[in-house]
Amino acid sequence: MTRRLLVIGIGAGAPGHLTLQAIEAINRAEVFFVFDKGEASSELVEAREAILAAHRRAPWRLAWTQSPKRRAEARVHLDGRDAAAPGPAAEYRAGVAHWHAERAARLAARIEAELPEDGVGAMLVWGDPALYDSTLRILAGVRAVLALDVEVIPGISAVQALTSAHGLVLNEVGEKVTFTTGRRVLKDFSHEGTLVVMLDDGTGLEALIAREAEEAAAGAPPLAIWWGAYLGMKDELLMSGPLAEVGPEILRLRAQARAARGWIMDVWLVRTCSIKSRAIFSY
Amino acid sequence: MTRRLLVIGIGAGAPGHLTLQAIEAINRAEVFFVFDKGEASSELVEAREAILAAHRRAPWRLAWTQSPKRRAEARVHLDGRDAAAPGPAAEYRAGVAHWHAERAARLAARIEAELPEDGVGAMLVWGDPALYDSTLRILAGVRAVLALDVEVIPGISAVQALTSAHGLVLNEVGEKVTFTTGRRVLKDFSHEGTLVVMLDDGTGLEALIAREAEEAAAGAPPLAIWWGAYLGMKDELLMSGPLAEVGPEILRLRAQARAARGWIMDVWLVRTCSIKSRAIFSY
Ligand SMILES: C[S@@+](CC[C@H](N)C(=O)[O-])C[C@H]1O[C@@H](n2cnc3c(N)ncnc32)[C@H](O)[C@@H]1O
Ligand SMILES: C[S@@+](CC[C@H](N)C(=O)[O-])C[C@H]1O[C@@H](n2cnc3c(N)ncnc32)[C@H](O)[C@@H]1O
Repeated sequence: MTRRLLVIGIGAGAPGHLTLQAIEAINRAEVFFVFDKGEASSELVEAREAILAAHRRAPWRLAWTQSPKRRAEARVHLDGRDAAAPGPAAEYRAGVAHWHAERAARLAARIEAELPEDGVGAMLVWGDPALYDSTLRILAGVRAVLALDVEVIPGISAVQALTSAHGLVLNEVGEKVTFTTGRRVLKDFSHEGTLVVMLDDGTGLEALIAREAEEAAAGAPPLAIWWGAYLGMKDELLMSGPLAEVGPEILRLRAQARAARGWIMDVWLVRTCSIKSRAIFSY
Repeated sequence: MTRRLLVIGIGAGAPGHLTLQAIEAINRAEVFFVFDKGEASSELVEAREAILAAHRRAPWRLAWTQSPKRRAEARVHLDGRDAAAPGPAAEYRAGVAHWHAERAARLAARIEAELPEDGVGAMLVWGDPALYDSTLRILAGVRAVLALDVEVIPGISAVQALTSAHGLVLNEVGEKVTFTTGRRVLKDFSHEGTLVVMLDDGTGLEALIAREAEEAAAGAPPLAIWWGAYLGMKDELLMSGPLAEVGPEILRLRAQARAARGWIMDVWLVRTCSIKSRAIFSY
């Protein structure tokens, strides 16, 4: 008799990303726990409600948890503003850990109140719960104070939405692929393999464009970029090509789209542009 | 009036990995193109046929293409034997490119013969078509000789099957994640972030165990591993813990399972074992 929480990946924008497992799990839960993060994410909350309305066969109940205010240096906004946060990485991580602990305490109380001891609850997570998402970390905190079985259902991630939209293979033959965040772009970029960047507010991309300009002057081979915003959603944006050419255009388009819609989620990947990849992906 | 080919990710083992998009696409195609790779992959072919039987509303047709023999140094078997291939990386890649070109020529002929000019065909791809899979590269070759629109539907990958089964987050807070193959493990391992390894025949893991033993003697922090085989399938195997302890056990279990079943597919990830991750993932 242990409470059970299903952490359900719902995909990264397209309703069709939903898996059969996810639908089965949605119909197994009795309560859906939701963090109230304020208006910024209201479109994302609506996307979740649309999924429940479409696939839940019985009525459902939402249980809201107020999200604590985030210390400025620890913000990881969906629009990637984390890249702008000042302070060293350790301070940043401490801020995140503190924020997770607060959320865990509030969520634990809510689960205890809302779920009977043999009850099944769920949280709907954007994309894949394993990728740059805090839900599982928060639940680890919950489990420190409340007996809870956690079951994870994977979901299509924003990176998969990006590669499928462009018809791309993530890796070159026998090469590595690195996923990172906007704030780590210069640190993690190398001319070997592919670099995927999430949670960038544009400053990571800007920094890489500047770095490439310097390197090009020294004779380095050019980079290619594949970019996407609002993937799988209304007004999806796609752009790709040589970084030096399309990089600045992407930054302009990004700023414009963000101003118009009030928020943006985008993801991109770069790699050194070998003749081989030019031949394969004609941009 | 251009032929259309849907490249459909079907997930990495569990029938429930299938997405609604994938099911919609399965019902849009009239012919399914399949490479005949010999007996080794017969269980994987059966998995595809089970998916069609369960989700295709109209009758369907399979169109087989004989896979050319692969030069020994260019083998990338599903059971990861590529790591054992001799020769430098360039030769390896040349072998792969040659093999892809041959497969492309055969597939182009088959598509031209089987699909009317406004026809829609499909290929069912294991996991996500963007991850260490050759289908999209082969189709780039097909498009060099035949007008063809390609549409990609992402699928749950083996890496997502691994993280969800263990309840893991792929990245540590603000850290990078690198995907690589068995043959590149020592090259790509670092104490920063997470390393995910696919296409390993065990030699990559063996090499990392040996490396860690050396490093531990010099005072390096220990590594943790999360491993899974036949994920989402009958007889799924999971193991995790400190690499020095469970690594050798995994190698034994892997050899045993492979001998018993005739083939194995496994995937694993390692990272330096901070106190934080010990607290979160109690193994
Ligand atoms: C907090 S992370 C969550 C990622 C999510 N768990 C996943 O698997 O995609 C948010 C980041 O994901 C990316 N992202 C998520 N959805 C996206 C979409 N529909 N289009 C473009 N980028 C997206 C952006 O890089 C954004 O900054
Ligand atoms: C040629 S790659 C294809 C990967 C696939 N496109 C994906 O997205 O998972 C084959 C490798 O994927 C991994 N793999 C695929 N399915 C798996 C499963 N069910 N269990 C464990 N590993 C799997 C193994 O590392 C195997 O060597």
